Amino acid sequence: MKIGVDYYPEHWDENMWEQDALLMKKTGVKTVRLAEFAWCRIEPREGKFDFAWLDRAVDMFEKNGIDVILCTPTNCPPLWLYEKYPNAVRTSPDGGHIAIGIRGHRCYNDPDFVRLSHRVIDKMTKHYARRKSVAAWQIDNELESNICACEVCTKRYRKWLKAKYGTLDELNRRYGNIMWSGEFSDWEQIKPPTDKYNRAWLNPAYVLDHQRFASDDMIGYVKSQAEIIRRNCPNVPVTTNCWFCENMPDLHKTFKELDFTAYDNYPPLRIPQNDEAYYSHAFHLDFMRGVKQDNFVIMEQLSGAMGSWAPMSRTTQPGMIKGYSLQAFAHGANEVIHFRWRTAVKGAEMHWHGLIDHSNVPGRRFGEFEDLCKTAETLTEITDTKLKSDVAVIYSYDSDLALKIQPQTDGFYYYDQLKAWHDGFSHCGVNVDIISENADFSKYKVVCAPALYVCSEETAARLNDFEKNGGTLILTCRSAVKDKDNGCYMRQLPAMFNETAGCKVREYDPIGYDRIDICDDGGNKWQCTNWCDIIECTSAKPILTYDGNFYKGLPAGTVNDFGGGKCFYIGTVLFKNHYRELAKRILKACNIGIIENLPERVEVSVRENEKKSVYFIFNNSEEKCVFTFKEEVLSLAPFEMKIISRDKC
Amino acid sequence: MKIGVDYYPEHWDENMWEQDALLMKKTGVKTVRLAEFAWCRIEPREGKFDFAWLDRAVDMFEKNGIDVILCTPTNCPPLWLYEKYPNAVRTSPDGGHIAIGIRGHRCYNDPDFVRLSHRVIDKMTKHYARRKSVAAWQIDNELESNICACEVCTKRYRKWLKAKYGTLDELNRRYGNIMWSGEFSDWEQIKPPTDKYNRAWLNPAYVLDHQRFASDDMIGYVKSQAEIIRRNCPNVPVTTNCWFCENMPDLHKTFKELDFTAYDNYPPLRIPQNDEAYYSHAFHLDFMRGVKQDNFVIMEQLSGAMGSWAPMSRTTQPGMIKGYSLQAFAHGANEVIHFRWRTAVKGAEMHWHGLIDHSNVPGRRFGEFEDLCKTAETLTEITDTKLKSDVAVIYSYDSDLALKIQPQTDGFYYYDQLKAWHDGFSHCGVNVDIISENADFSKYKVVCAPALYVCSEETAARLNDFEKNGGTLILTCRSAVKDKDNGCYMRQLPAMFNETAGCKVREYDPIGYDRIDICDDGGNKWQCTNWCDIIECTSAKPILTYDGNFYKGLPAGTVNDFGGGKCFYIGTVLFKNHYRELAKRILKACNIGIIENLPERVEVSVRENEKKSVYFIFNNSEEKCVFTFKEEVLSLAPFEMKIISRDKC
Amino acid sequence: MKIGVDYYPEHWDENMWEQDALLMKKTGVKTVRLAEFAWCRIEPREGKFDFAWLDRAVDMFEKNGIDVILCTPTNCPPLWLYEKYPNAVRTSPDGGHIAIGIRGHRCYNDPDFVRLSHRVIDKMTKHYARRKSVAAWQIDNELESNICACEVCTKRYRKWLKAKYGTLDELNRRYGNIMWSGEFSDWEQIKPPTDKYNRAWLNPAYVLDHQRFASDDMIGYVKSQAEIIRRNCPNVPVTTNCWFCENMPDLHKTFKELDFTAYDNYPPLRIPQNDEAYYSHAFHLDFMRGVKQDNFVIMEQLSGAMGSWAPMSRTTQPGMIKGYSLQAFAHGANEVIHFRWRTAVKGAEMHWHGLIDHSNVPGRRFGEFEDLCKTAETLTEITDTKLKSDVAVIYSYDSDLALKIQPQTDGFYYYDQLKAWHDGFSHCGVNVDIISENADFSKYKVVCAPALYVCSEETAARLNDFEKNGGTLILTCRSAVKDKDNGCYMRQLPAMFNETAGCKVREYDPIGYDRIDICDDGGNKWQCTNWCDIIECTSAKPILTYDGNFYKGLPAGTVNDFGGGKCFYIGTVLFKNHYRELAKRILKACNIGIIENLPERVEVSVRENEKKSVYFIFNNSEEKCVFTFKEEVLSLAPFEMKIISRDKC
Repeated sequence: MKIGVDYYPEHWDENMWEQDALLMKKTGVKTVRLAEFAWCRIEPREGKFDFAWLDRAVDMFEKNGIDVILCTPTNCPPLWLYEKYPNAVRTSPDGGHIAIGIRGHRCYNDPDFVRLSHRVIDKMTKHYARRKSVAAWQIDNELESNICACEVCTKRYRKWLKAKYGTLDELNRRYGNIMWSGEFSDWEQIKPPTDKYNRAWLNPAYVLDHQRFASDDMIGYVKSQAEIIRRNCPNVPVTTNCWFCENMPDLHKTFKELDFTAYDNYPPLRIPQNDEAYYSHAFHLDFMRGVKQDNFVIMEQLSGAMGSWAPMSRTTQPGMIKGYSLQAFAHGANEVIHFRWRTAVKGAEMHWHGLIDHSNVPGRRFGEFEDLCKTAETLTEITDTKLKSDVAVIYSYDSDLALKIQPQTDGFYYYDQLKAWHDGFSHCGVNVDIISENADFSKYKVVCAPALYVCSEETAARLNDFEKNGGTLILTCRSAVKDKDNGCYMRQLPAMFNETAGCKVREYDPIGYDRIDICDDGGNKWQCTNWCDIIECTSAKPILTYDGNFYKGLPAGTVNDFGGGKCFYIGTVLFKNHYRELAKRILKACNIGIIENLPERVEVSVRENEKKSVYFIFNNSEEKCVFTFKEEVLSLAPFEMKIISRDKC
Repeated sequence: MKIGVDYYPEHWDENMWEQDALLMKKTGVKTVRLAEFAWCRIEPREGKFDFAWLDRAVDMFEKNGIDVILCTPTNCPPLWLYEKYPNAVRTSPDGGHIAIGIRGHRCYNDPDFVRLSHRVIDKMTKHYARRKSVAAWQIDNELESNICACEVCTKRYRKWLKAKYGTLDELNRRYGNIMWSGEFSDWEQIKPPTDKYNRAWLNPAYVLDHQRFASDDMIGYVKSQAEIIRRNCPNVPVTTNCWFCENMPDLHKTFKELDFTAYDNYPPLRIPQNDEAYYSHAFHLDFMRGVKQDNFVIMEQLSGAMGSWAPMSRTTQPGMIKGYSLQAFAHGANEVIHFRWRTAVKGAEMHWHGLIDHSNVPGRRFGEFEDLCKTAETLTEITDTKLKSDVAVIYSYDSDLALKIQPQTDGFYYYDQLKAWHDGFSHCGVNVDIISENADFSKYKVVCAPALYVCSEETAARLNDFEKNGGTLILTCRSAVKDKDNGCYMRQLPAMFNETAGCKVREYDPIGYDRIDICDDGGNKWQCTNWCDIIECTSAKPILTYDGNFYKGLPAGTVNDFGGGKCFYIGTVLFKNHYRELAKRILKACNIGIIENLPERVEVSVRENEKKSVYFIFNNSEEKCVFTFKEEVLSLAPFEMKIISRDKC
Repeated sequence: MKIGVDYYPEHWDENMWEQDALLMKKTGVKTVRLAEFAWCRIEPREGKFDFAWLDRAVDMFEKNGIDVILCTPTNCPPLWLYEKYPNAVRTSPDGGHIAIGIRGHRCYNDPDFVRLSHRVIDKMTKHYARRKSVAAWQIDNELESNICACEVCTKRYRKWLKAKYGTLDELNRRYGNIMWSGEFSDWEQIKPPTDKYNRAWLNPAYVLDHQRFASDDMIGYVKSQAEIIRRNCPNVPVTTNCWFCENMPDLHKTFKELDFTAYDNYPPLRIPQNDEAYYSHAFHLDFMRGVKQDNFVIMEQLSGAMGSWAPMSRTTQPGMIKGYSLQAFAHGANEVIHFRWRTAVKGAEMHWHGLIDHSNVPGRRFGEFEDLCKTAETLTEITDTKLKSDVAVIYSYDSDLALKIQPQTDGFYYYDQLKAWHDGFSHCGVNVDIISENADFSKYKVVCAPALYVCSEETAARLNDFEKNGGTLILTCRSAVKDKDNGCYMRQLPAMFNETAGCKVREYDPIGYDRIDICDDGGNKWQCTNWCDIIECTSAKPILTYDGNFYKGLPAGTVNDFGGGKCFYIGTVLFKNHYRELAKRILKACNIGIIENLPERVEVSVRENEKKSVYFIFNNSEEKCVFTFKEEVLSLAPFEMKIISRDKC
């Protein structure tokens, strides 16, 4: 298993490079990522290219046996480019250009930007085409959907709409534009709704479509870069580094164009006292493994206190540097690259800490990193292992966007609905896949589709089939509310699932932060919050019943046997422990082996191949933890990972 | 009494219209409001008019014995209009146009908009002039004061100022523009202060005047529409639907131009635990009755959970659909039109719930609506009754605006001051009128003028006369601070009321959210907040005395006998129960019959004519309530209304 | 000692002037400040000057023996100026002009504004050159650094940068512009970063430099005015009135150009219950004395409730009007001018209360002011006294700016770090100077440099010399992090102080609002917050040790004997009492006499000359306070000041 670092030779006096490379080699660093923001050094004047400095850096790493991942430097064009081609700067909703001076200001579609960025990529990839040490190419940096209101983007948007709808009549009808007299009578009337304040009031169909366009448009930009890279460096894998950003593109579509998934992993550093504060490293890592349903790479990994424009966060506690990297391995990463080797002493990110401090004196964090590198070198046998899972949780990009556009009730967030179930299953010690709604369901025993708000007829049919063929399907409130046009189905909820779930939602009460008592079919008393579906069972049996409000005594959750499978419908939002109880009940009913009594904040996952199973047991807490795992008493220090390999018999 | 619904035929497949109309008829719906936002269907291309679809809808309702209220569709011009005439879009403070795509973006004064809107209204009113089923015309929708910075509006604003002040010298003097060297030396220097962030720092005299202008300007727009409608449909009453909006026009002036008051009634759906959270349906309804001092119509009435851009609210609890409509009758509505028949499945408001859900399956709420319709049909005898009151609370538009422009102290809001007294009197079971400062006071025994911050010499004289002629006048802190120019009187407070109130405010302490102990003349200990006038009695007697701070022992409230009447001066802000105690004391002193021990959240009002008195007793709470009313034991379910008719003997 | 008032004759009918002047005279007012915002009356049309009205006002005061301070009226140009010369209005980041109608909108560099403002100043200073009653000139009003994005300002900014860096290469290198490809390749690419939202993401080196430029630019404007005034009125002292504003200029540099420091003193009126809420009048006054290390003038002093755009504050409690003015004397003011004589009845500030209310009836506050005037007249003997101190706290303008640009951790503010130490020393009853990092340290026994974040090599050397020469130096966390280019030193902290402090910061934990236990070398248990340096002693001894977190047992604070002096290093943030304990320990170690057991919120300072020492003992609290001071039992009412003069023997 490989450990790497992000390194910016251009930030440091060249006479420091050698000592850095030697220390990396000694420490066990296998890869450095380079050149991400270096366009102004690669092309200091228009058309004048300089790779000499970067050659010397690559030479230095090669000499020390360290591979490089090179980046296309297009995230930050040089200032001469913006000066000469002002339209290369993204256009804001009011028609002006956005403020520059930070990063990522370019419009993906501006012809001058496209021409110049393609040229620099072409030059760079040709220049490094024969370098053996180039392990991969990274496209740009932390790309977001294309939110630009310029003429070029506006025309592309209209073209995208024309391709999708054909006629304005069709578009008006499917959007329901008659509302507030908003029917377009000419394509020219259509403008990209890029103003995020105004957007909140617009037709949700219109806004969702623009976000789909903006994602597609970004993917087109990725493809155009990938083509150049592949033409010049046909044997080098290509990726881009993603994160959970504001204008997140469709990651499943994006990485379909790329060779592997790369993720920037910055867990927050203040550990919440409240167990309900759902930040979950494991969820995010499982999500990223699900993007291509394959192992992946961490392109930037937390190394210390974070902060630049904002006040600094806490520093990493002892164990976090090593533990969080091994946790990434546990969930499918095969390489973890730390951001960054040494903390910057200049520029906006000088308080975003690397492994080594400003002083250049390696300290506690670096010591832990050294230890991590040593451990990673011993883990050769897990490189060709993968995670397998009987349980999948569906992530729907459309539902994610649509629920951001139209918040349903106070306190109800799409990711929380997924994390709640992910946590429930994980606490039972089973691997959990986070998959797209377009994935193959047939290899799972349990498929959980929380808040599948936008649900096409096709997806519904595939889920119903999965259940009929013996699978266990879990649905929740706010499932199948919307069709692909982001309009409401004129059906009683859960719409296409009425028969499968064996129930109908008579009406609902969006209770926000209020709490209501409920009890389960075993007589246990719980509480629910946010949303209350009032359910009428047709063939289902109640498993949760409201114990308050005007729907006291009516079902809040049901189970239905239908076809060869089972369908659970949970019409409200519960608290963590209740999801864990439900998950246990469901897994047991499916005869999936679980680990009972896993301590809070201890995580277990399994990677395997034909020959062996490797168990990862991680104490993701600040407290030492002693417990029995597979008849062995384990004592785990804070953030300690125990890796146990067992041959398959 | 009539029940109606808001219906948008253009939102639904035409083959659904008939079943909707039949169900309405069966249910007892008497009126539908139509065509509010349908301009783009009425005039799909400039100058091409299409009433055929609307004719078919009107026919359908006529056929089923249902009257229609038609709306001028000017709130939402078609997109071709904005495209061809961009100046029809309101101008923002920075000189650009506001973002469109929602509703209400038109500038009332743009010549093209005016021409085209007048033409469509002319066509439409001529087209429907001979339709018997047209019960009324609604102008536009939820109109707000004209906040536009375009050239046309700027010129109108200057003209309005010229007409008011004649010369710049007079304007400068009355505004006090010398402050910060702000004297205008040319009319061209005057620009409408439409930037609400910047406005907070401007001369309050200037800002108040602009808001008066903006209200007048909107009223001019209403008049121009009303003229066309009346020319073409001389026998049909004309109104517009109002609500308590951000840029609220002077409603008393507005409805002077119209035939009846129409109000959009959306009580909030989360019932506050805290009794001090003053939302009061009754206050708002009494306010609307006061606008024309006559019965009125609810043009849009709450039907379910609300939400579109915002997270959804709670749903209506059992009893609310029926109870809140009957409550409107109890306070002077003669017709209640529910928004809306069926929840939209497309567009921005699809989570703003109608009577019927997206599924088109009538549910609990619709059942309650059916029950309401049945009840309303039995209430024929109250149509010609009205509310009479001995008690009036004054609402001053100038004070409302001026106190928003200059907040006095943390936690002090004008409406709360009115609601506090309204609640106090209402809790004694008497009808309360909310009247304009220009209303006739002589028919009341008690006139309460809370925080009459801007108070003309004329109004003061009329109130003083009222008191001298035997009336009971109630004044509070922040009364008569400002003259009509929104400058401070150079007099000790309460300025023109010193003699009547028999006291002077020596100084004041704006205590914000702090609380201070006070006690009354009976030795009871209370608390006050927000504001403390430190009072010196000249002829008045103290009834409230501070029991803390550096003014401990000094009067906080007084009563004075003067002329033939009485004047109470309350120089601080109290809590709900204390206003109720004061109201009881004052009503008893005036020999006005009260209902003792009315339970919390039970409301009583009386409509009457020469022959009978009709008592409305409403349990505006979630709890069942049993109590004795006029020697009869009443048991009221949550939100249940009891209506008792008694012949006058 | 002199008491004055701010008076605006132009706000009042001229027939009120005489009664005002007579009452001032009777009350003991010595000075009035005039004409601050009166440009539109002095030059009502371009080039037409009218001093007649101001002459009559000055005559009136002269006649009554009252001196005047005249102001250049440039803060608020007349509206005709903005109308004719729109570029005189400051340019906002988006290229438009800022909204006007308030005050201070002018661009200091616009050629037309400069020409016209210089002309009016020239006319005015010539006109009043021979008036004996003119005691001083005030330039403009509450000046802030020049935040303007116009062409002229942009060019000046580039010129300033060229003068500082010579070449773009040097600038790029020192800024570290390579980060995010931000290297300038042409001076034209440089634009002033005036957008405060965008600014948060920019290179801190770039932002700090612009703020230095903006301060220098404002100082240039001040100098240009001062030159005109001095040319025409060579014997009259010149100042400007400052406060702690958002875009605060370098006050030490500013007042180097002026004859005395003038400060607008508005302590907040709600007294915090929490002792940790560090508002400290004494700190602010000591800061202002430190600006020129000399006595100063309060140009605007609190007189009542404040409020205009915001809700009003509480009113001044009994004792505050007098007590806060005498407190200013205690800390080095020789004159206190109250804002304002009478509360405005028109304009935006009509709720910002003067000594007399709108009613023009003098009340409690005025009574207290009369008492103050009487007392001030008796204090003739202290006019030629000054404060001397053994203890200095360093204020660094660069650190102040840099820490605002890059907040370090939640809850950590630069001024709080200074105030904490100032409070600690003050509580021991010693005078404390707040001095610039460029001041002479040699006259102090203790120099405390909290959070000296930006610290030049020169300043470090001077501080190290101070310590070596026997001084006691106090350093804290976040000292010497940055060089003058606002880049990080590549050294272990506290960088150039490693030897002096005898310790190194191994790493740090920005703990934000968290708290961690610590204990001192006497075994006392304390708590710390915000920031934790983890210290390695080289020659120092620990005096504070962490008792929690992963650095439990490691030093949090140290003391080192080095050369002839001592250096304390406190690597964390403590609570008020702990700073008091540390201050006591340090003062005792330095043999500086302290007052033990000074009650909470009682302040003592000493002014002296060769002949006598004058003790000021101030009860800055709402409670009566009895205690023994120098063997005398003092009983102080709330906000009472006791002044005790002792001859030196």
